[in-house]
Amino acid sequence: MIDLKPSMLTDQYELTMVEAALASGAAQRRCVFEVFARRLPDGRRYGVLAGTGRLLEQLAGFRFGDAELADLERRQVVGADTLRWLADYRFSGDITGYGEGECYLPGSPVLTVEGSFAEAVLLETFVLSVLNHDSAIAAAASRMTAAADGRPCLEMGARRTHEEAGVAAARAAYIAGFAGSSVLAAGARYGIPTIGTAAHAFTLLHDSELEAFAAQVATLGSGTTLLVDTYDVTTGVENAIKAGGTELGAVRLDSGDLVVQAHAVRAQLDRLGARNTRIVVTSDLDEFAIAALAAAPVDSYGVGTQLVTGSGAPTAGMVYKLVAREGRGGQMVPVAKKSTSKESVGGRKWAVRRRDAHGVADLELIGTGSAPAPEGDEYRSLQRVFVTDGEIVETPTVEGARALHELSRAELPVTARQLSRGEAAVPTRFAQEDAR
Amino acid sequence: MIDLKPSMLTDQYELTMVEAALASGAAQRRCVFEVFARRLPDGRRYGVLAGTGRLLEQLAGFRFGDAELADLERRQVVGADTLRWLADYRFSGDITGYGEGECYLPGSPVLTVEGSFAEAVLLETFVLSVLNHDSAIAAAASRMTAAADGRPCLEMGARRTHEEAGVAAARAAYIAGFAGSSVLAAGARYGIPTIGTAAHAFTLLHDSELEAFAAQVATLGSGTTLLVDTYDVTTGVENAIKAGGTELGAVRLDSGDLVVQAHAVRAQLDRLGARNTRIVVTSDLDEFAIAALAAAPVDSYGVGTQLVTGSGAPTAGMVYKLVAREGRGGQMVPVAKKSTSKESVGGRKWAVRRRDAHGVADLELIGTGSAPAPEGDEYRSLQRVFVTDGEIVETPTVEGARALHELSRAELPVTARQLSRGEAAVPTRFAQEDAR
Repeated sequence: MIDLKPSMLTDQYELTMVEAALASGAAQRRCVFEVFARRLPDGRRYGVLAGTGRLLEQLAGFRFGDAELADLERRQVVGADTLRWLADYRFSGDITGYGEGECYLPGSPVLTVEGSFAEAVLLETFVLSVLNHDSAIAAAASRMTAAADGRPCLEMGARRTHEEAGVAAARAAYIAGFAGSSVLAAGARYGIPTIGTAAHAFTLLHDSELEAFAAQVATLGSGTTLLVDTYDVTTGVENAIKAGGTELGAVRLDSGDLVVQAHAVRAQLDRLGARNTRIVVTSDLDEFAIAALAAAPVDSYGVGTQLVTGSGAPTAGMVYKLVAREGRGGQMVPVAKKSTSKESVGGRKWAVRRRDAHGVADLELIGTGSAPAPEGDEYRSLQRVFVTDGEIVETPTVEGARALHELSRAELPVTARQLSRGEAAVPTRFAQEDAR
Repeated sequence: MIDLKPSMLTDQYELTMVEAALASGAAQRRCVFEVFARRLPDGRRYGVLAGTGRLLEQLAGFRFGDAELADLERRQVVGADTLRWLADYRFSGDITGYGEGECYLPGSPVLTVEGSFAEAVLLETFVLSVLNHDSAIAAAASRMTAAADGRPCLEMGARRTHEEAGVAAARAAYIAGFAGSSVLAAGARYGIPTIGTAAHAFTLLHDSELEAFAAQVATLGSGTTLLVDTYDVTTGVENAIKAGGTELGAVRLDSGDLVVQAHAVRAQLDRLGARNTRIVVTSDLDEFAIAALAAAPVDSYGVGTQLVTGSGAPTAGMVYKLVAREGRGGQMVPVAKKSTSKESVGGRKWAVRRRDAHGVADLELIGTGSAPAPEGDEYRSLQRVFVTDGEIVETPTVEGARALHELSRAELPVTARQLSRGEAAVPTRFAQEDAR
């Protein structure tokens, strides 16, 4: 596989637009692009922004080197003038946006990219890929951790999605409150706790379940988690305590009716004297299944497929739209597409979240022109400066994003935690007229 | 971002199993793991295997180097003995499987990995990530190209999925008959034709739509595609022909009611004398929307979100299961999980596809023991040898996989092309008893 810079994770039309704009002279016009979601996935109450840190970490490498230029030349994607321009390309504009981990609502300007048309339009696909994927996972993860209500959620979905997407998904899930991930690269790259002990194959490999359990405990210690459903769960739990003793860390259930089994296994463990042995469940969970297990004696949830596929909403549906550009006279002109079904609001936006007297968010106020002056705690400013004149000023960390998400979600009205389909938990109002 | 080898795209439990099995002595037992889907996504008629080539290309790099070992040591994932074993690791076993691009059915053994337990179990997550993702995209893409019935489908979804997943999706879509992709890396890495001209931002950047179109045609030539729905479609088409002349390559519609608009735009183009100017449509298409446009005067389809998210089935649901392992006496023993909801069939499988007198597939016959001897054209053997004793014997190419998919799909009964939900187009029969 050819190793390419992130600049090639770009749609061809960005390069052909640069080429045509270089020729027309418009390439140097100052432009403002905004990233936002026109709506939340069907029935969702809030979105969760994730990916900003991953994006900024890769921005410095978003260049066109010899390999990239040679490919574009060979395949005649653009001509010689554009290739020369690309060879010198580095983003030299400004990027601001919501903090990573922040909850967002329809229309929230989660990222704003300002620069010349040519330099800013090139980032479109890459920015959207990262934010659309990571935010979709974070939004699903946030619903799951909310439903788990303090019980740890463990990310185990790497095998159900693209191999690199799995690592990004682990990061997004951790930001939204997951306790750890199964995939090693998530630990190596982002410092996320990694977890995992054994699969059914380990039991099947040995001549008996008891031999397999004994082998696992001998190496991993009695604090390990034994998977007890390869053959018969009741015998499995018996064997687990025989092998690990009453101080065994946990047993894992990966099939069947988890509510019924959790009660039976808890009772059996208690009868055997293993009162501290925890129960981990891991079979096809999503936020609804987690909620349904709230009253069952379960200690943690392993979530795979439904997490990494966004639990029914595998992409966040964010767009990257030109909202303002330099006019003939040098002034900035708000612009917006005006055709049938995809209208946008022109102009560079500010965004604040209004909180009521109890500190509960009740309005996402978005406008152009001057933002309202902060009045005590009523308005919380949502945008931060990440890049100024091409220099990175702040890169969100995974731990910082996790902390922000917890605060941001706690501020939402209680309706945000409802899993049923409904309206956004906080209404969005466009206030550009008021503010002028 | 730390650059890691694919070995770290692995779930931690694979390493802890290796550690425990090295200690118990079971690590060296010869094992057979099979990859298969227990069922197709709800209502789908067939699956499409993709990713095998991508997997094999990365197999040689699936090693644990200094960076990987240092991380595993620092985070105490495994102990010193296992680290030493990992340092020497390279896969030295055998891999066989269905050809890339082949259609598959529930239970089809699409990949078989044979080696010692330790060396084969390590590949689990990576193998599944690649095959589950790429096959999900290929299956959706195949339905779309079938619905398009010869009209070109163009992949434009990179922005809606993880940045690397977008490139793999372009590859999978091409295998399933797509004509090209928007994302540059798909061209650079896999030689897939890349396409794209301009977005709404290009029109908004200029002082008028006509100026924008003229700038695009001046640089990209009159064969280009002009996006005509930024303001008003009728005026847009007028401006397009003013700028590009009656030999303009194509106009693109990206919003609104595409059926109604396609008819109106076709009529307008014809009136203007632009009878050869094609119409490309690109708004929220899936296989159903494509089918609904069959009678509309549309020349090609650009598909984004629904392609890269698998059109409702974002993962193929394949599993990697131990089906046979060496017993105490050295003989191979078939094994299978026996608990409640996830039963498997033990033993290493062969697979053939039976065709009727008209050459139409009517049975997926899977068994253990000896495969039926080929009798003329009745049975088609489905498995190929990819890796022998750790050496790659054959790596599927993108063009080869595309050709195989076309043949394989053509062989399926007509019900396979039905978009409505239903049973698998070809029944699967497990014949292990017959064959013994």
